[in-house]
Amino acid sequence: MVDPINFSSAVRASIDNKTKPLGSLGLIETLAAQIAEIQQSLIPCADTCTLTIFAADHGMARAGVSAFPSEVTRQMVLNFLSGGAAANVFARSVGASVQVVDAGVNGAPIDHPDLIRQCIATGTRNAIEEPAMTKEHLITALTTGEEIGRAVSSDVAAFGEMGIGNTSSATLVSSKILRLPIEQLAGRGTGLDDAGLARKTQLLAEAALRTPDQLDAVTALSEYGGFEIAMMCGAMLGASEIGRIVLVDGFIASVAALSALELRPECRTNLIFAHSSAEAGHRRVLEAIDARPLLNLNMRLGEGTGALLAWPLVKAAAAMLREMASFNSAGVSGPD
Amino acid sequence: MVDPINFSSAVRASIDNKTKPLGSLGLIETLAAQIAEIQQSLIPCADTCTLTIFAADHGMARAGVSAFPSEVTRQMVLNFLSGGAAANVFARSVGASVQVVDAGVNGAPIDHPDLIRQCIATGTRNAIEEPAMTKEHLITALTTGEEIGRAVSSDVAAFGEMGIGNTSSATLVSSKILRLPIEQLAGRGTGLDDAGLARKTQLLAEAALRTPDQLDAVTALSEYGGFEIAMMCGAMLGASEIGRIVLVDGFIASVAALSALELRPECRTNLIFAHSSAEAGHRRVLEAIDARPLLNLNMRLGEGTGALLAWPLVKAAAAMLREMASFNSAGVSGPD
Repeated sequence: MVDPINFSSAVRASIDNKTKPLGSLGLIETLAAQIAEIQQSLIPCADTCTLTIFAADHGMARAGVSAFPSEVTRQMVLNFLSGGAAANVFARSVGASVQVVDAGVNGAPIDHPDLIRQCIATGTRNAIEEPAMTKEHLITALTTGEEIGRAVSSDVAAFGEMGIGNTSSATLVSSKILRLPIEQLAGRGTGLDDAGLARKTQLLAEAALRTPDQLDAVTALSEYGGFEIAMMCGAMLGASEIGRIVLVDGFIASVAALSALELRPECRTNLIFAHSSAEAGHRRVLEAIDARPLLNLNMRLGEGTGALLAWPLVKAAAAMLREMASFNSAGVSGPD
Repeated sequence: MVDPINFSSAVRASIDNKTKPLGSLGLIETLAAQIAEIQQSLIPCADTCTLTIFAADHGMARAGVSAFPSEVTRQMVLNFLSGGAAANVFARSVGASVQVVDAGVNGAPIDHPDLIRQCIATGTRNAIEEPAMTKEHLITALTTGEEIGRAVSSDVAAFGEMGIGNTSSATLVSSKILRLPIEQLAGRGTGLDDAGLARKTQLLAEAALRTPDQLDAVTALSEYGGFEIAMMCGAMLGASEIGRIVLVDGFIASVAALSALELRPECRTNLIFAHSSAEAGHRRVLEAIDARPLLNLNMRLGEGTGALLAWPLVKAAAAMLREMASFNSAGVSGPD
């Protein structure tokens, strides 16, 4: 084990000796230092990236919290498997690979050779009225996710999700972990109008009344979570354990990260927050975990699309530290 | 020629029918629409990118407006040619190619097979005391740049620069075109401290007194410009003429773009602004041309580094419009 203070100074010195004005690469320098820390290396690498998309359905969707019907979760899983979704297009564009996990999609098992079948149940129960899942189901989701995270062989493990109703689930989970009112976290999700948002907020406030104002992460996830959120939480922990750079997508992925941080705060080093979503609750969650996301493109699609667009920045930051010349090696004069 | 209103509606319809909630890709949708407009195509492509770095010296640098000595311009050109600078590292990381133009570097001609030698003179004159260049030199810089821009064969033409003293030059040029006080535009450049910034601001204010408060772009460039800024302005015009996507880097490149817009406002369609620089004047210039940059990473290095990091977003936006499935083609249900 390298002395942490000496290692951190060595990273800073290496960045400061690159042929550029001091600090002139801004957040890319901060990012490079974090990646060096994750990999404990002065020549870090973020050249490969796998996006894992966790999909599951939500009992709450039947209550009318989303602009889209539940069937869309399954339809989008098929869209991912045939390569037509935004996540597929962006992954091809940046050169990342994609894997899809059925963590709990409604209906008959989806039979496709590329699908990772870890369906815990066909959707959660309606969390407005009762706990979304049993503690046993939650533990299965977390441990299965951890195994999936530990199996990521690329430098960067990006995580995204699909699940009609899951901004509602993420709103409730973060509300309970952070003890924040629903009104500060509920957003338009896939595109509710004002009346739809008012209805969603009212339903979630009702669901929140079932339990105390603050809950630990495990209880919050079992009361209000989704199988995709819980499994993603486990996967973030698993990928962190084996030293991967964990790239967190938008609101729902950030709530999975929030839960992971409650369970094991030491995974914070590995987490890079990709973008600031247009979904209302995201900013609150990012503030609570003191995260400064890389992009702000007013996106709110999920699927890992923000993580995919942020990966080139992560890759370039590692390359900067690994490959850029120093003043000395390039024979460039320093400041007067 | 396609009917512009019908074409624009067709682009909007294509984006809105993709398998995603309406508007959920935020700025990526705006970007896709602009790229479609540039290429007049519903299946646009931004898969290849060439960064052209224009380098030149500034007579003003001798007056002490920069934290670095003038020799660094030449040293950095050699660093670009040997692949060790930030721009080279980022270009390799994102898969762009780089070409370097000597537009007016001090000293003996640089002999390197990969260098485009268009050295107009070995640096400008000291613009604090006299016009930086003759009108003849300016015209040569603009027309040479235009030829270089017209020769870009990639989908995206990214532009960056190197020139010790060139934030001073850009500050003066933009101050005169926009009729804004020097104090609102002058920044720390490569890293001046408070005393250095005060001295720079005073010197530039003195330089500004030589001429009327407002100047046209041609006069502003000849009085205060640099050969790299003028040649880049020409290149942006040339690349726009042949339908390239023009990716504008930071403060200095944006002042070249401002000049290009003064000369031919119709090039606005082709210009994409890569990032918001930490350099003070950049925000003012972006506001003046109503540009919303893609990234905000607190960078202030130049060389085209911001443009290179923004290119993956441009590439992904074009791919979204070209490749993503529609609700119909993927069999996905729309909103309830």
